[in-house]
Amino acid sequence: MNLIKNTTVTLCLAVVITVFLLTYSVEATSRNNYEAVVDNVIFMIPDGFSASYATTYRIYKESEDLIFDPMLVGMVKTNSANNWVTDSAAAATALATGYKTNNKMVSISPEGKPLETILEAAKIAGKATGLVATATVTHATPAAFAAHVTSRDSQTEVALQMIDKVDVILGGGKRNFLPKSVGGLQQERNLIEELELKGYTYIENREDLLKLDAATNKLLGLFAEGPMSPELDRNVKEEPSLANMTATAISTLSQNKDGFFLMVEGSQIDWAGHAQDAAWAMKDVEAFEKAVEVALDFARNDGRTLLVIVGDHDTGGMSVGGCDSYLSKAEILREVKATGKFMANKLSAKRRNAKEILKTYANIDLTKAQVKRIKKAKDDEVADVINNIISEHAFVGWTTKVHSGVDVPIYAFGPTSERFTGLIDNTDIPKRMAHAMGIHFKDVIGSH
Amino acid sequence: MNLIKNTTVTLCLAVVITVFLLTYSVEATSRNNYEAVVDNVIFMIPDGFSASYATTYRIYKESEDLIFDPMLVGMVKTNSANNWVTDSAAAATALATGYKTNNKMVSISPEGKPLETILEAAKIAGKATGLVATATVTHATPAAFAAHVTSRDSQTEVALQMIDKVDVILGGGKRNFLPKSVGGLQQERNLIEELELKGYTYIENREDLLKLDAATNKLLGLFAEGPMSPELDRNVKEEPSLANMTATAISTLSQNKDGFFLMVEGSQIDWAGHAQDAAWAMKDVEAFEKAVEVALDFARNDGRTLLVIVGDHDTGGMSVGGCDSYLSKAEILREVKATGKFMANKLSAKRRNAKEILKTYANIDLTKAQVKRIKKAKDDEVADVINNIISEHAFVGWTTKVHSGVDVPIYAFGPTSERFTGLIDNTDIPKRMAHAMGIHFKDVIGSH
Repeated sequence: MNLIKNTTVTLCLAVVITVFLLTYSVEATSRNNYEAVVDNVIFMIPDGFSASYATTYRIYKESEDLIFDPMLVGMVKTNSANNWVTDSAAAATALATGYKTNNKMVSISPEGKPLETILEAAKIAGKATGLVATATVTHATPAAFAAHVTSRDSQTEVALQMIDKVDVILGGGKRNFLPKSVGGLQQERNLIEELELKGYTYIENREDLLKLDAATNKLLGLFAEGPMSPELDRNVKEEPSLANMTATAISTLSQNKDGFFLMVEGSQIDWAGHAQDAAWAMKDVEAFEKAVEVALDFARNDGRTLLVIVGDHDTGGMSVGGCDSYLSKAEILREVKATGKFMANKLSAKRRNAKEILKTYANIDLTKAQVKRIKKAKDDEVADVINNIISEHAFVGWTTKVHSGVDVPIYAFGPTSERFTGLIDNTDIPKRMAHAMGIHFKDVIGSH
Repeated sequence: MNLIKNTTVTLCLAVVITVFLLTYSVEATSRNNYEAVVDNVIFMIPDGFSASYATTYRIYKESEDLIFDPMLVGMVKTNSANNWVTDSAAAATALATGYKTNNKMVSISPEGKPLETILEAAKIAGKATGLVATATVTHATPAAFAAHVTSRDSQTEVALQMIDKVDVILGGGKRNFLPKSVGGLQQERNLIEELELKGYTYIENREDLLKLDAATNKLLGLFAEGPMSPELDRNVKEEPSLANMTATAISTLSQNKDGFFLMVEGSQIDWAGHAQDAAWAMKDVEAFEKAVEVALDFARNDGRTLLVIVGDHDTGGMSVGGCDSYLSKAEILREVKATGKFMANKLSAKRRNAKEILKTYANIDLTKAQVKRIKKAKDDEVADVINNIISEHAFVGWTTKVHSGVDVPIYAFGPTSERFTGLIDNTDIPKRMAHAMGIHFKDVIGSH
């Protein structure tokens, strides 16, 4: 009996120990899962990019091999707190803070409270941080990652708030970092000088960017007074491409041993959509794709980098095909060598050279009716008319000059990329990125 | 030494046996994975449904709880063999056979060879088969699953080819099953009588459908001479809903012990898109959602059913928001109680009652300018003008009266649903369904 009792006790103990060990290892695993599984997050935002842009770009390239396509994991709801159709400020706030706010507001709650951003949380956690954009770097999308303002128009204030938070700032908008008069008040600070004093390397053109000292770890590059150029019109010797800036941002930030958070915006896809300029849109998607290639190469080699790519909303209600035809000829957009606005500026006073300009820059032989449309257009609508004619040739449809509210595709690569699958909300994205980096968000921050 | 030798031999043998057993079990697992993992496939096609319809429907319902949303797994490329913008015949051919063909062609290769369909393969494998549509059941989408014709217009020929392949046929199109003169030739066969002789129960209205004998296993239900009614205009006592037909199809087909393949089409979402009738589109999406609910309930309880939902293409280039405003008011479409066509038919000779008709059926107070637009419209464009006015009120944009080529969302539930994730081609879908059922496709079939 004693033997049986002893055996029973031993067996029971063995079971208890086994269960304990199993439980402990499961607990450890689940805690480990919550611990950082990536060092770096690269968040790439093609502003205004929806499924129609993806499909049109596939036709434009006449290729099934888009760099995004194999990374598609799901779709994202884009509405803002007060509207089914978001603007870029509310969209970027959702993507940066995990909270919905009202259109126009930048990382401030609808009630006016500042919301901690994933860039700020990453900075506190010891990571290097970067913002890259082809708009002014103080424009709504980058702004939402490092500033808190009730109106996206306060770009000088955004620049002020970026100091001490962002290690690498690359894009347009030099004017917002320099002294000027604001609403009658003189703003005296020269933020470029201040940042140089803080140890930033300041650069202004592509050459500076490409010959940077490899040891640079704080970098301010402002490549235009206002926004940088549309990719179609860019002076490729003067201005760096989005891929150039992305490569430099990554090489600079990746020197930090505790990892980095980088946001890269393809800003002008959205502006092309507002202008309904299909060729500009496609060329800027192409520039964005090249930047994605740079980021993907890094993430592939690194193994501890999460890459997430998602448009903040659709712009223009673009459609693949239009004009009541079962056709798309988006590939002809490759023949277009300038934006509609550029071509409009090339027209002579009475626009008698319309046929020649469209032939030169878009390889389109205008019909008499089309020449007449261009000649009759109001001064501020000539570029629109040119863009409409080009869209009709390519069978690209548009419904609006602002944004649409359609769900947008999301792409992800690297550890935890599977956590972005299915239909998710835009506010889910920074939460999942933070989780991947093992960072906890504070909700509302006390002051800014 | 002998001991060591023996021990070594024993160890080696143990390793060999272990490796063998492991290899065998991996082989068995991988073969099992290729064996049938589901008995049934329910394939639901909301014709013309893209992400814009999904988002607009969320606003229409003022709800975040769409039945589709949690099932989103990826997106699908829709182009046909000869065009970036597919028609429904080529799209349905891809979805039914796994091959791209030219627009207009129904499960025939571009070279004219008949392509085996998943429904035909399922039938040969001993499964029961069904087709449900609110169009004529011989229309392009259902046709592609059970017929092979070079032109989608040959609906009488499609009806002939459906005999002996499809156990449950429910939808519109009685006229295509009855004798009539075709291009001067008298077509003598009465397919309804022939099918009754083969043991089919024939029904013609909702009451017949709801009081069916539970033992029925072959069923022909033709509820209209031509297409069934748009959900907005349906006589709910006479005509069954798509959900009614789906429930009956499932209960009839699921009697077969070897499982079933069922295709259910929400046909008229597409027609609403062609008409740019936003209220019709949303009401037919609602009817489709109710049918999905029926199918999902069955799949959940059954556990051996794969449910796949995907639009064949977008129709209309619909956008969420439009008219250059950051707004969508799709919820007002719930107030619309009839199609634009129905309202146009209610207008008096000089359309003096336009204001009253739009108030009665759409709860819209027309402005004087809008009344004028309706009065001035050509006879065949009155419905279009009414639809445009309603879309403007709801801020729904449109770019085309035909299809667009945008990638569309795909939803799946049940075993192997994860195999539809990411960006896939429309031709991948039937292949993966066949794989799930453990069925091999023949490529081209010898004759039809």
